[in-house]
Amino acid sequence: MQHGRIPSNDQFSGGLNAIVKRFEDLGFAVERKASTAGRPTSTGKPSIFGHIPDYPVGSLFDDRMAVKSAGLHRHEVDEISGRPSDGADAIVLNGGYREDFDEGDYVLYTGQGGRKNGATHQTEDQTLTRGNLALVKSETDGLPVRVIRGHRGAEGLSPASGYRYDGLYRVERHFHQRSTDGPFIYRFELRHIEDDDPSVKPFSVTDEPPDGDEAPARAHGTTQRIVRNTQVTQWVKDLYDGRCQICGVSLLTPTGVYSEGAHVRPLGRPHDGADMVSNVLCLCPNCHVLLDKGAIRVDPETFMVLDVLTGSEVGVLRLAAGHPLDAKFIDYHSTHIADQPMRQPGA
Amino acid sequence: MQHGRIPSNDQFSGGLNAIVKRFEDLGFAVERKASTAGRPTSTGKPSIFGHIPDYPVGSLFDDRMAVKSAGLHRHEVDEISGRPSDGADAIVLNGGYREDFDEGDYVLYTGQGGRKNGATHQTEDQTLTRGNLALVKSETDGLPVRVIRGHRGAEGLSPASGYRYDGLYRVERHFHQRSTDGPFIYRFELRHIEDDDPSVKPFSVTDEPPDGDEAPARAHGTTQRIVRNTQVTQWVKDLYDGRCQICGVSLLTPTGVYSEGAHVRPLGRPHDGADMVSNVLCLCPNCHVLLDKGAIRVDPETFMVLDVLTGSEVGVLRLAAGHPLDAKFIDYHSTHIADQPMRQPGA
Repeated sequence: MQHGRIPSNDQFSGGLNAIVKRFEDLGFAVERKASTAGRPTSTGKPSIFGHIPDYPVGSLFDDRMAVKSAGLHRHEVDEISGRPSDGADAIVLNGGYREDFDEGDYVLYTGQGGRKNGATHQTEDQTLTRGNLALVKSETDGLPVRVIRGHRGAEGLSPASGYRYDGLYRVERHFHQRSTDGPFIYRFELRHIEDDDPSVKPFSVTDEPPDGDEAPARAHGTTQRIVRNTQVTQWVKDLYDGRCQICGVSLLTPTGVYSEGAHVRPLGRPHDGADMVSNVLCLCPNCHVLLDKGAIRVDPETFMVLDVLTGSEVGVLRLAAGHPLDAKFIDYHSTHIADQPMRQPGA
Repeated sequence: MQHGRIPSNDQFSGGLNAIVKRFEDLGFAVERKASTAGRPTSTGKPSIFGHIPDYPVGSLFDDRMAVKSAGLHRHEVDEISGRPSDGADAIVLNGGYREDFDEGDYVLYTGQGGRKNGATHQTEDQTLTRGNLALVKSETDGLPVRVIRGHRGAEGLSPASGYRYDGLYRVERHFHQRSTDGPFIYRFELRHIEDDDPSVKPFSVTDEPPDGDEAPARAHGTTQRIVRNTQVTQWVKDLYDGRCQICGVSLLTPTGVYSEGAHVRPLGRPHDGADMVSNVLCLCPNCHVLLDKGAIRVDPETFMVLDVLTGSEVGVLRLAAGHPLDAKFIDYHSTHIADQPMRQPGA
């Protein structure tokens, strides 16, 4: 058997073009940048993800300029460092947004924007652009985000003066919600990555293939996605013999059918969904991701599954006898998870 | 909008029947048991997963009978407790298999069987049946397995006498391999679940819907699957704009395309695959699961993607210019991951 490098073939026709076309079909004007998305351009330095050499967790800085000079954060004023094309690599927590909620290892972070003419409160809806879109890219791809706390941040968690590098976090989820001021804000859930995580080596997104690692540790890299199982999800998966309630696929492996139990209203704060069979669907991994990310939603009255971007019907939710699914959880998902104002960014 | 319990509809036609038919098409004789798979039958007590009340981690027992009486393990002699229909809930590590490798938090566990007439070495190939199949069910579904160590186990990790309950482990992966005696054995990788995991409540698989939990902690339940990201996987995902190299799907979400970087030869021991672009594919979650579980394989010469169970062609691996995929990793996957002797259990 021949080994060695496989020559590339021409069977791959770019997926991005199909997506651009889909956006154009939806009425968006899509302009392709000169360089490939996600690659450094002449308009800015590439984002660096992970710890920065010589600046361990706990490093202190007099001001934002010092943070910037160390390479920990791209800006002097903006809270979010990064670009939509390659993700956010750092944020600053310094008490600027009243909706910020800081528990140390868990942070509920407010997106940027929505403040006209230097207001210190929300005057209009935030949009999924710039730093907010960069944080979403970090969530989707599991990129590590450096957290820098300033002296105006949460008491007991923030430095007495200046700024402190507090290590790497991952963006677990985001959603949008009305602020106490009225207009919509984006909220990002960040969770601390253990400091002994082997993904400490900084990296940037490059055109050239990265060198990689010939013998990495098992738990290599940052977590992009975790699927859990409980007695409740197990029961629902067994009820459907692992068949996806949305697309009907059974992922048959040599050792059984693989499926996942999806909580329609997410567990834990801030959504506080229940781990009960009335809140769980049996899905294939693809449909699970689409549901979690709000790309599809279920109509609470007809159980039609709808593509959120196009509004088109994907199918009908399959429901087995004895599965007491509760429509109020479906309604919650439609309202809070699958209702992102992307099609009308200003709405 | 109406809320409340959604009445079940009749649009669901059992997925299991389709699978049974597929097996029958493949020439298997499939006999449906009187009761539903995964439910307790009159032929045995249901398996109980998780910690057992009154027997905390570290509990000591004089002998296997005492372990059984406590409800920690189903058998007095067999090492694996559980049934293929509902998973393995406990194992004993007591030095009975020379291929067992015990590091405490990480265990490489040998399957049962393959020893004719009470031999203490492997005389024939182990089969994916009984306890071995039960452990695979625990892997697929993320069920917690109690580990009980006996005094003949690894030095420094085992009790001086009798048996000790050492907490919950998850089955991360399994594979089959030649034993030092010659015949094939199954090997299971188990990893310790932190003791403060909220999934401590014992549960069994029941016909009735479980009560569940109205306000569970966020990190509820055991881990069924973790997807990680590295600079290397990120680069490959960007190269394909997130489009699956096997099925061609782009999972478009309101915030970007979701895809996963799959290591063809798995990372970490015992496979020791490289985190290099030559070992990584850009896949959708469904194809990623099928590849990881060995349900599909790629022909190292033609790059045809093949269904391992049927041998039929699924498609051709899409390969972009500049992606130096290395055929030796594909070959490794075909030989070690996607070569489970299920079709000929005695082979």
